[in-house]
Formats: sequence, structure tokens, C-alpha cells
Amino acid sequence: MTERLVLHEYAASGNCYKIRLTAALLGIPLERRHYDIMKGETRTPEFLASVNANGRIPVLQAGDRFLPESNAASFYLADGSHLIPDTSFDRADMLRWMFWEQYNHEPNVATLRFWLAFVGEAQLSPGQREQLPAKRAAGEAALRLMDEHLERRAWFVGDSATLADVALYAYTHVAEEGGGFRLADYPAVHAWLARVAALPGYIPITA
Amino acid sequence: MTERLVLHEYAASGNCYKIRLTAALLGIPLERRHYDIMKGETRTPEFLASVNANGRIPVLQAGDRFLPESNAASFYLADGSHLIPDTSFDRADMLRWMFWEQYNHEPNVATLRFWLAFVGEAQLSPGQREQLPAKRAAGEAALRLMDEHLERRAWFVGDSATLADVALYAYTHVAEEGGGFRLADYPAVHAWLARVAALPGYIPITA
Repeated sequence: MTERLVLHEYAASGNCYKIRLTAALLGIPLERRHYDIMKGETRTPEFLASVNANGRIPVLQAGDRFLPESNAASFYLADGSHLIPDTSFDRADMLRWMFWEQYNHEPNVATLRFWLAFVGEAQLSPGQREQLPAKRAAGEAALRLMDEHLERRAWFVGDSATLADVALYAYTHVAEEGGGFRLADYPAVHAWLARVAALPGYIPITA
Repeated sequence: MTERLVLHEYAASGNCYKIRLTAALLGIPLERRHYDIMKGETRTPEFLASVNANGRIPVLQAGDRFLPESNAASFYLADGSHLIPDTSFDRADMLRWMFWEQYNHEPNVATLRFWLAFVGEAQLSPGQREQLPAKRAAGEAALRLMDEHLERRAWFVGDSATLADVALYAYTHVAEEGGGFRLADYPAVHAWLARVAALPGYIPITA
């Protein structure tokens, strides 16, 4: 890509890491601009007006255009690369796992990590505390579904890594920070995490 | 497409309607197989084993392969058509709105419709009832964001209808069934709904 790429991010967010990992696997350089979401830095009038009216990171800036939503930004970086399958069904099947990640996995596995490891259980509202058991159960169900799928295959779609693996890796590999999840209970997931971490160009979430 | 396409669905679901509307706009014939989600027909062992281990509809069957997730199934049908932009940024920007729909719009606007118009308020659990105000506020915020975006443009991405419009139309046009939402409060959304309904090949959710 010849345009300037700037990732507007909060580094510990798995959603932001998805974009950094996609870029790293493809050898694409990214500038990074940090926002402290714990201090509301993505809800300022300037951020809402110029970066994302939805008040969320990550946002990938490509030249003077802004692209919110982690999986869409990863798709933009990977369009035309080996991380997106070249057959129509597999391409849609990759997106299927990415939509599933945002609907069934992230709101449970990632939200528990954010609430318990970043906000802190004592700071949760009564409504949030009440949702803990349901989010825990839904998170375990998501990990179980992944484990069953991976029992029969090395990667989520086709026979090599795609954006589906990148998207699902981001919050799965740090799921235990959400308290309660034990990745050892999901052996196929555990083996797949090691395969992702061995990909050429891989970087950890702390990089 | 030359393969047999079967939509496994519950017709009143906006997620199922997205796929029917995409197919109708493109002139693609679909067979339809109905499941009564109110009777648990997508949680039977047979459904979980052969159609979708996640126990949800819609699922698009293409030959002997199964594709869950409404936006992924729509992408499969529309791949290579005028409903998907042919430039890389716009294609990703379309996906951005589709991921946003599943994360910020559907869990609020669609869930309120399901809870209040299908399940019935009296049948809600205490935990569900407690979530009503937060889902209402998040649903209004989603509609407001759409309205602000559409003030300056006719379609969500580029200058013609894409899957982003199809995906967002599905639950927006029936939002008032969720009680409380008033589409007249969102004039740009209101005008855009009429543009979608005027597209060649358009079918209503009841078709």
C-alpha cells in the first residue's frame, strides 16, 4: 500500500491487536496513535468529529479516510493477500467466523477480560455484575464451538491461516485474563493457538 | 449460481430477510426451509449436527455446504455483483457497516423487537427486563449515528446501494415493532428506507 496508514488504538485491546497482527503477517508498516480509553479519550468532540462518530477504537486511517471496526480494517489490509481465500465460498466462510466473533465471542470473552482485568470487579455496576454468569456461560459455549470445529482441521477455513484465525486468536489467547476460562479445557483451541503464534511475521499483543 | 441454494430460516427474522432481499435484488432463486425458533427447532440434535452447531438461523445451504451468519451469506450471494463495491477501501467500508450492524445495532434494535413483539414483555426474565433501558438507549444511539451519516449521502457507502444498506435496512425498517423507537425522529433514515424499498427487485419482509 502506498498511502500512509495510521492505527488509532488502545494497545491492550484485542480488537486493535487484530489489525497490528494482520499488518505484521503481511509486512505492512503501520504508524500508531494511542488513546487512553480508560480516560475517555475516544469520546472527545474532536475524536467523534474526525476519527469515529461511534466513539470507539480501533480505527484505521488510510490517507485521509477513516475505517472503524477491527475486522473491516483487517480486511482492508489483507484484501488480495493470502490471508483471504480466493474462492467465493471460503471467502464468505471466513467472514462467517469474523461475524460470529463479533456477535458470539467478543461480547463475552473480551468483555469479561475488560471488566475483570481492566475495569476491576469492584468498579462494575450492579447491572454489569448481574451479567457475569451469562457472559461466562456464553464465552464457554463460544470456546467449545471453536474447539469442536478445530478437532477436525488446523485452521478455521480451508487449509491455511486466514483473517478468521487472526480475528479469533486476538481475544482467545488472552481469554484467561477474564478470570474463569481455562484454555487447557479446550485442547484443539490450545494447539491452534500455537499454530497461529508460529506463523511467519507473528507479533505478540504486547509488541 | 448453478448450485442448489436453500435458506434455512425463520421468516420474520430480519437476519433471514437480509439474505432473501439480497437474492431478490440479484434475481437469484432460493429454496426456503422453515424452522420455528419459538419451539426450539434450531436446537435439535439433527439441526446442530447437520446445519449449524451454533443453533441459529439463518443458514444458507449451497449444495452440500452450510454457511451461517446473515451478513456472510449475503456476501456469498453478492460476491462479484454490483452490491459489493469494486474498490478495496469501499469494500472494507461496506464490511465496516455490516460489522457495526451486528455489534451495535442488531443486539439492541433487533433484540428489543424480538423480546417485545415476539416473546412478549410479560414472558421476559428479570435479567432481560433489566436490560431494556440500556438496549433502548443503545438502539437510539445506533439510529442517530445512521441518521447523521445519511444526512450527507444517499447510501451508506459510495453512490449506490450495497450490502451495507441491505444489512441495515432489515431491522431498521421494522424498528418500531420493538416499541418506543420512532423512525419519524430520524428523517435521513426515513428517506433512505424509501430509497431501499424502491430498488429494482425489492421484496418486503413478509414476502
